[in-house]
Amino acid sequence: MTPRVALIPGIPGCRAYTPKVPKIVDKAVRRDEIIAATWRIIRTQGFDAVTLREIAAMLGYANGALKPYFATKEELLTAAYVRAFDVAVEKANASIGGRTGIEALRRLCHEIMPLDEERTLEAAVIIAYWGHSLGVPALAEIFRQHSAELRRRMIRHLEEGRAAGEVVTSEPDGAIADELYWMMMGLQAMVLFAPEHASGRRQRAALEKILESLAH
Amino acid sequence: MTPRVALIPGIPGCRAYTPKVPKIVDKAVRRDEIIAATWRIIRTQGFDAVTLREIAAMLGYANGALKPYFATKEELLTAAYVRAFDVAVEKANASIGGRTGIEALRRLCHEIMPLDEERTLEAAVIIAYWGHSLGVPALAEIFRQHSAELRRRMIRHLEEGRAAGEVVTSEPDGAIADELYWMMMGLQAMVLFAPEHASGRRQRAALEKILESLAH
Repeated sequence: MTPRVALIPGIPGCRAYTPKVPKIVDKAVRRDEIIAATWRIIRTQGFDAVTLREIAAMLGYANGALKPYFATKEELLTAAYVRAFDVAVEKANASIGGRTGIEALRRLCHEIMPLDEERTLEAAVIIAYWGHSLGVPALAEIFRQHSAELRRRMIRHLEEGRAAGEVVTSEPDGAIADELYWMMMGLQAMVLFAPEHASGRRQRAALEKILESLAH
Repeated sequence: MTPRVALIPGIPGCRAYTPKVPKIVDKAVRRDEIIAATWRIIRTQGFDAVTLREIAAMLGYANGALKPYFATKEELLTAAYVRAFDVAVEKANASIGGRTGIEALRRLCHEIMPLDEERTLEAAVIIAYWGHSLGVPALAEIFRQHSAELRRRMIRHLEEGRAAGEVVTSEPDGAIADELYWMMMGLQAMVLFAPEHASGRRQRAALEKILESLAH
């Protein structure tokens, strides 16, 4: 868990401040370590089979050492999934920079598609999260909101593309975004379970075909 | 578990025969009931959270009554998933009949896509199965083989379509099949988590656009 005490420099009574700064830094680092390890565990062993105790053991932590960070497996899985989403968005932002239109859409899609081993790790986290979300509406809602955010971004770039004359198709932007997203979500599973039919080259070619079709 | 004794009428020593026919029929019916209940449980509660004991209780069975059918949750989940696949294939076969080419491909896709509530139940089973398969290569392999079978069928119908002059695109049949399958697998998740962007109408329209593109 992140500390709930506001950290306002020099305010007495803000007990987490001066003496604990190094510990808080450690906490964030430790939390990142746990999430990174969880990504690998999900990829190699799945998430159903492991316990918080086993994850702690794999990390060389004492039993119970994960509890201050993640009280339950569900919290850990949620944090691992949210991190995967955040990483994809951060990388997309960095890759897109000031670009707009089709090139921005391409770069956004490249960060959602499981094009390399890191993004395949993220795909495994998403698949595990979906499986667990089936019975947990609050978790399903997080994915739904993330999907809605990505859909809005795709539509914005399509609108930019229309303004620039790159996108002239009569198909509505919402439909284009949905179909791109369906494909990209299917790829999360296929890259794990049938990678021979979901290579990075094939993924990129399929995306280019769709992007190219928008110009007609 | 299905009985391992061969049932050959009138052969003495085939101990499962005469006296047990009614019981065996019951067993198959009971097994179907359990799988049907499991589909509903996965859709409404997910699969992580429930135990074999709870599933038995929901069905009004005594504790332990599921054990002769499914020794573990993994066996039950696998049977539920395999049933979902078999149902889709049986319905596709019935729908396709003697048809070939694009119309056969359309009807096959309609049974894979989560177009109605029953197929949305099946989608939930697939999502649960994927989540559990991450750490279990033998389960992942079952899905991989099913995917390969569906891919072969899609390619066969594309070849029929080419022979009939319905399919003239220069895109290879394998690439067309992969892209259709990616979309259909993404839809398994989206119909559950963002159904507002994966209506049956939208799914059918997207499929028609792809099928129509094959004629150019």
